[in-house]
Amino acid sequence: MALIVQKYGGTSVGTVERIQAVAKKLIQHQKQGHDLVVVLSAMSGETNRLVALANEVNDHPRGRELDVLLSTGEQVTIALLCMALEQQGVHANSFTGSQVRILTDNAHNKARIMGIDESNIRTALANGRIVVVAGFQGCDEHGNITTLGRGGSDTTAVALAAALKAEECQIYTDVDGVYTTDPRVVPEARRLDRITYEEMLEMASLGTKVLQTRSVEFARNYNVPLRVLSSFTEGGGTLIAAEDPTMEQAVISGIAFNRDEAKLTVLGVPDHPGIASQILGPIAKENIEVDMIIQNTGQDSTTDFTFTVHRNDYQAALKILQNTAESLNAREVTGDNKITKVSVVGVGMRSHAGIANTMFETLANESINIGMISTSEIKISVVVDEKYLELAVRSLHNAFNLSQA
Amino acid sequence: MALIVQKYGGTSVGTVERIQAVAKKLIQHQKQGHDLVVVLSAMSGETNRLVALANEVNDHPRGRELDVLLSTGEQVTIALLCMALEQQGVHANSFTGSQVRILTDNAHNKARIMGIDESNIRTALANGRIVVVAGFQGCDEHGNITTLGRGGSDTTAVALAAALKAEECQIYTDVDGVYTTDPRVVPEARRLDRITYEEMLEMASLGTKVLQTRSVEFARNYNVPLRVLSSFTEGGGTLIAAEDPTMEQAVISGIAFNRDEAKLTVLGVPDHPGIASQILGPIAKENIEVDMIIQNTGQDSTTDFTFTVHRNDYQAALKILQNTAESLNAREVTGDNKITKVSVVGVGMRSHAGIANTMFETLANESINIGMISTSEIKISVVVDEKYLELAVRSLHNAFNLSQA
Repeated sequence: MALIVQKYGGTSVGTVERIQAVAKKLIQHQKQGHDLVVVLSAMSGETNRLVALANEVNDHPRGRELDVLLSTGEQVTIALLCMALEQQGVHANSFTGSQVRILTDNAHNKARIMGIDESNIRTALANGRIVVVAGFQGCDEHGNITTLGRGGSDTTAVALAAALKAEECQIYTDVDGVYTTDPRVVPEARRLDRITYEEMLEMASLGTKVLQTRSVEFARNYNVPLRVLSSFTEGGGTLIAAEDPTMEQAVISGIAFNRDEAKLTVLGVPDHPGIASQILGPIAKENIEVDMIIQNTGQDSTTDFTFTVHRNDYQAALKILQNTAESLNAREVTGDNKITKVSVVGVGMRSHAGIANTMFETLANESINIGMISTSEIKISVVVDEKYLELAVRSLHNAFNLSQA
Repeated sequence: MALIVQKYGGTSVGTVERIQAVAKKLIQHQKQGHDLVVVLSAMSGETNRLVALANEVNDHPRGRELDVLLSTGEQVTIALLCMALEQQGVHANSFTGSQVRILTDNAHNKARIMGIDESNIRTALANGRIVVVAGFQGCDEHGNITTLGRGGSDTTAVALAAALKAEECQIYTDVDGVYTTDPRVVPEARRLDRITYEEMLEMASLGTKVLQTRSVEFARNYNVPLRVLSSFTEGGGTLIAAEDPTMEQAVISGIAFNRDEAKLTVLGVPDHPGIASQILGPIAKENIEVDMIIQNTGQDSTTDFTFTVHRNDYQAALKILQNTAESLNAREVTGDNKITKVSVVGVGMRSHAGIANTMFETLANESINIGMISTSEIKISVVVDEKYLELAVRSLHNAFNLSQA
């Protein structure tokens, strides 16, 4: 008999009918002999509704009171799911974050979990109950309600799985797993049975939006096996776990991409120490997130500096950069907001030479020009013109033979 | 500087605009130098919405989970009010029932308060904050969320006032006080400045719906001065307090009435011990509440037994009574669902003879026939045909000179 933590997101509990469907699914799992701890989000749309209410009474609501307000969303769904389970004759017990208790720091709206007292959950499980826990929330040492920020329910589930030493943490969502790439771009894209934490982190941060990055990091740190599954269809999903030394890893796991990039370059910057922070400091001050950063040696002891931002931030970043360039006596500022980033990701590339070469050759064969290159141990990213995105992804998916298991 | 507990009901916090108006009112009171503890209900309609959600997933939701669900209603309003106060530059702190903590027994949906730990509130007040507490809720000794049942927010306010030894517990509602009778029936009805707990209890249970009976009993037990005021208009409201021995009490405080009564009589019941419970037992079993009960000696060692119920329960009660009458060999069952109850209430009547006589004479002068009479120490109730209700109330209001202070 295994202890399993399952998390259902806002879409999976978005209506009374869907809550009833989750209840049915849980009862099936319980009949298979599992102990179940279920983590729920608020009904989809509810958190936004509450935030809108808050903004009606206060332009900048205080974090403490916002958390009191927002935490009601999950409190509603945990009660309703327990009622739906009881209606079908199965005993269940709900717990708010404070009741568990999930102890956090006091950084309201983005609190971090410090510890979990799992005794209440253990008692309820020992009494044969399905335990239903409010995601996204906890309390600080003084009993103030806190929330973990967007996507925090995934983190709650992983933290509970770690504390309870669960066999698996299953994240039910509206996709049935992690794919080699987006099936809307490459119809032959294949669902991966297994992927490492590191690959998932690279896939997620590169735009394959399935799991919160933070929850994957948490799972990796505590070595919690994480599985992504669909709430709406059957199937084994994708297991995200540590590298299995007994198995040969696939060289490449998938092709990630990000459509909404823009790049900015400042050319001919006098090259002296501290130039990077002088260029990026004013950008960060405006809360613009920078993705890739590349610095090259230019002509005449100057340097060329390029970085990418989200396309929505392009105009703002360009304006800031033009001011900075002037004060730095740089030669020129250029930019392009019609670019995309394509990445090949795989832990296997560490032990296989020539992956980069295959990637560049494949793109060259399609006459796709590479604007920027950036690499990590398990990922190679290139920037290409947005009009070539689909062609680049399809040709790379084919070149690395990803539709075959 | 006085410590005052104020309670605002669902109508008073029913919209964002009304919550902002409550915030303004509180800031005025704070400027007068008061320490404020504010108890809130859920926004009007919210509790019903949540109950409807519960009933969609479960015909008979378990009390524990229903309380988890329902308690979110007040949690939303306390957060919003604090935000509205902060927006106007005043510091405020919200507390759920669990956070205060308001300790109750574990009778979910109708829990009773066992104790209050006021230390969190004292600390927040010492820091100059307005304290905003969720009404209607608490938690049991195991940390399970409980609710106090309908109207429970009044009880929360009174209990907090008792625990904090507040100077006054002010209940803000949509009427501006307690009147000598319903002003819609008698335009000259006068708002009472002061009334005793006992009179208020008789007035409330007789149909002047201003305060929950339970909160008045609680206030009487702990001698908490209670004041009913309007959220929407200015004015001193009505103080409900212990009898003031230094003042001469008014003989009669008011005329209460109840429109929706029906009476049932079983005639010629063989008179032997236990007859009352044999008649009323089957009625109680169907959860029909009985109001007045009168038993008279009839002819030939039989007895006549009459009682009143809410008009909605008349047909059901009649059917039950007919069955009972048959099994008891009673002579006849009669009933009337076009009756109303009119009562004169006043602690002063204890020391004044002739109140009953004035009442009966007044009704006789208007040719109003009295169907039943029932008396307590501070109240005389009569049942009259519903068509005479307004006439009876007006003539009694005039006879006891109630429009004069």
